[in-house]
Amino acid sequence: MKKATMIKLMDKLLEGECFIVTSHCNPDGDSIGSLTGLCMALRRLKKKAFVVMDDAVPANLEFLMRLSGASVLEGALPEKYSLIALDCGDAKRLCCSEAVKEGAESIINIDHHVSNDCFGDVNYVDKEASSTSEIVYYILKQISKEKKTELVDSAIASCLYTGLITDTGNFMYSNAGADSFKMACEIMKIGIDKDSIVKNLFQSNSYSRMKLLGDALETLSLHGDSIASIELTQEMFQRHGVDSNSTEGIIDYARDIENVEIAVLFKEKSKDDIKVSLRSKEYADVNAIAQKFGGGGHVRAAGCTISDTIENAKLLVIAELKKALKL
Amino acid sequence: MKKATMIKLMDKLLEGECFIVTSHCNPDGDSIGSLTGLCMALRRLKKKAFVVMDDAVPANLEFLMRLSGASVLEGALPEKYSLIALDCGDAKRLCCSEAVKEGAESIINIDHHVSNDCFGDVNYVDKEASSTSEIVYYILKQISKEKKTELVDSAIASCLYTGLITDTGNFMYSNAGADSFKMACEIMKIGIDKDSIVKNLFQSNSYSRMKLLGDALETLSLHGDSIASIELTQEMFQRHGVDSNSTEGIIDYARDIENVEIAVLFKEKSKDDIKVSLRSKEYADVNAIAQKFGGGGHVRAAGCTISDTIENAKLLVIAELKKALKL
Ligand SMILES: [Mn+2]
Ligand SMILES: [Mn+2]
Repeated sequence: MKKATMIKLMDKLLEGECFIVTSHCNPDGDSIGSLTGLCMALRRLKKKAFVVMDDAVPANLEFLMRLSGASVLEGALPEKYSLIALDCGDAKRLCCSEAVKEGAESIINIDHHVSNDCFGDVNYVDKEASSTSEIVYYILKQISKEKKTELVDSAIASCLYTGLITDTGNFMYSNAGADSFKMACEIMKIGIDKDSIVKNLFQSNSYSRMKLLGDALETLSLHGDSIASIELTQEMFQRHGVDSNSTEGIIDYARDIENVEIAVLFKEKSKDDIKVSLRSKEYADVNAIAQKFGGGGHVRAAGCTISDTIENAKLLVIAELKKALKL
Repeated sequence: MKKATMIKLMDKLLEGECFIVTSHCNPDGDSIGSLTGLCMALRRLKKKAFVVMDDAVPANLEFLMRLSGASVLEGALPEKYSLIALDCGDAKRLCCSEAVKEGAESIINIDHHVSNDCFGDVNYVDKEASSTSEIVYYILKQISKEKKTELVDSAIASCLYTGLITDTGNFMYSNAGADSFKMACEIMKIGIDKDSIVKNLFQSNSYSRMKLLGDALETLSLHGDSIASIELTQEMFQRHGVDSNSTEGIIDYARDIENVEIAVLFKEKSKDDIKVSLRSKEYADVNAIAQKFGGGGHVRAAGCTISDTIENAKLLVIAELKKALKL
C-alpha cells in the first residue's frame, strides 16, 4: 500500500473521538477478529468505540467478544461518530442499518477484497493482504511506533490472529505470504493461547455435521480420474438436523483427492432445485462451465443452479465437465 | 540450544569431506525434508554427501528427492565418512544397515525428539524445536553467516518448509512457535512454490482412503457428551483396499467434535485382536486409561490392544472412559 494512504488513515483514526465499528453480514473470523482487535486498540487510545453488528456472532467466535470486552452499542446513536467498515467490499453488505451509515460524519473503509469499490471517505483497501486482520495489525504497529507505545497486547493479538488464520485456512491458502508469517511470529512473541484459538476455529465441529460428512463421503464418486462428485440430499439434511447452508468445506474432500482436477457438489435445495458447486485444482476454468448453466464465479471456484432432479443435474453437469477436460 | 553445541556441530560439518545422511525408518516429511535439504547444502559446500534410506520414500514426498537431486548411495561405502542421523531419537531406528553405522568415523545426531538418548559422537538435540527441518534451517543460516554466503536457496527452502509443516500440522499444533513462523517468513521471501508443497502433503488423498473415512464416520458415536468413538473393521479395509496401517488422522474427526474430551478408535487387526487408540483434548489422562489394559503412551495420546471382539472391546473401554470422566 502507498504510505500516503496509511498516513491518511492513521490521522483519521488518531483525530477521531468516537467510532462505530462494523463489518459484513454473516460475519466470519476475519470480520469479528479485525473488529474486536481494532475496537480494543481504539479504546486503549482513549477513543469511544462501539460495535454494531446486526447479525449474530457465530458461536465459535463469541470468545473474541468476551476476550475483547467489545462494547456493543445499546440505545441511541452517538451524536458525532465515524463509521469504520471492516472486511466488507460493498456498502450494501454492511451489517448495520441505513441510519448508522447516514448518521456517520465519515466512513472509513478498511478491507482486502479484490471487489472493493472504495465506498468510504477514507479507503484503505490492500488487495494483496491475506486478511483485514493483517491490515489492522500493521496499522496498529504503525500507530504504536508513532505514539511510542505498544498497542498490540495479548488480547488484541488473539483477535487478529483469529482473523489471519480464518482467511488463510491456517496458512494453507496461497494468500498466506511473508507478511502473514511475520505477523504470526511477532504475535507468538507477544504470547497468545494459540491452542485454544485453533480449538475454537478448527476443532469444534458439531457431531451432526460430522455425520453429514460421513453420508456425503458415501456418495463420493470418481468420473474418470480427474472428476470427483459429492451429493447432498434434503433427506440427509433432515436426518441429521443440519442446515443446508452449512456445507462449507465438504467439497474440499472431493477436490483434495490425488489426480482430481474438478470437484463438483450437488446440493438438493428442493426436489427440482439443485445447487451445483464447482472447484478446480490447477488448470480447469470452472467459471466457464458454470456459465453454460447460467451461473458463474471464479476460475477455481464457481457455481450454478439447475431446475431439475439431482439425477438429471448430475448427468448434465458431469457430461459438460468431461467435455471440458476432453475425457 | 547452547551456542557451544551449535559451534561444535558447525565445525564438524565444515571439517568433514564426506557424509552419509540417513533418518528414521518409515520416513515422514520431516525426515525426508531435513535429509534432502541438508544434503543439498553440504554439496553446495563442496562436500560429498550421499543419502542412505533402506525404506521407500513415500510417494507424496518423492518430489523432494527429485527437487534436491539427492544422490542415493549406490555400490560400496565410501572409505571415510561421517554418518548424519536426522530426526531419529534412537540409533536402533536408523534406516540404514549396521555396516553403515559401523563404518562411520563418527555419528552426528541432529534431532528434536524428547526421547533422544544422544547416541551420537556429536549431538545436537533441541527438544524445543518444532522439527528437525527447523533445526537444520537455523544451522544453515549460521553456516551462511560464517561463510558469508547464502546457502538456503529456493530448493533447500522447499525441502525444509515441507518438514516444518509436516511436524507442525501446517502450524496447527502447539509446537509451532515464533521460530517456526520466523523461518516460514524468511522462506516466503526466498520464494518457494508453497501451493504445490501443500498440495503434495495435504491435498492428495487417495480415493479409497476417503471412502474408508466415510465408513468410519458412519460408525462415529457419542457416549454422553464428552466421549466419541469410531470403529474400523477388517471388512472395511478389505472392501476399500486400504492398508490397516494407514488410518492416521481418522481419530481426529472424533476428537475435534465440540465438547468431546476423549476420542477412541477401535481397529480390528483380526477378529480377536483390537487395537485401541485414545486421544484427549484438554484434561483427561488417556495414558492412565491405556495402562489399565496393558498399554500406554502420553497424557493426550495413548493406546492398547485388547484380545477380544470389537463389540466386547467397545464395552470394556467405554465403561472405563466413562468412569475416568465420572459420567
Ligand atoms: Mn477477510
Ligand atoms: Mn520430526
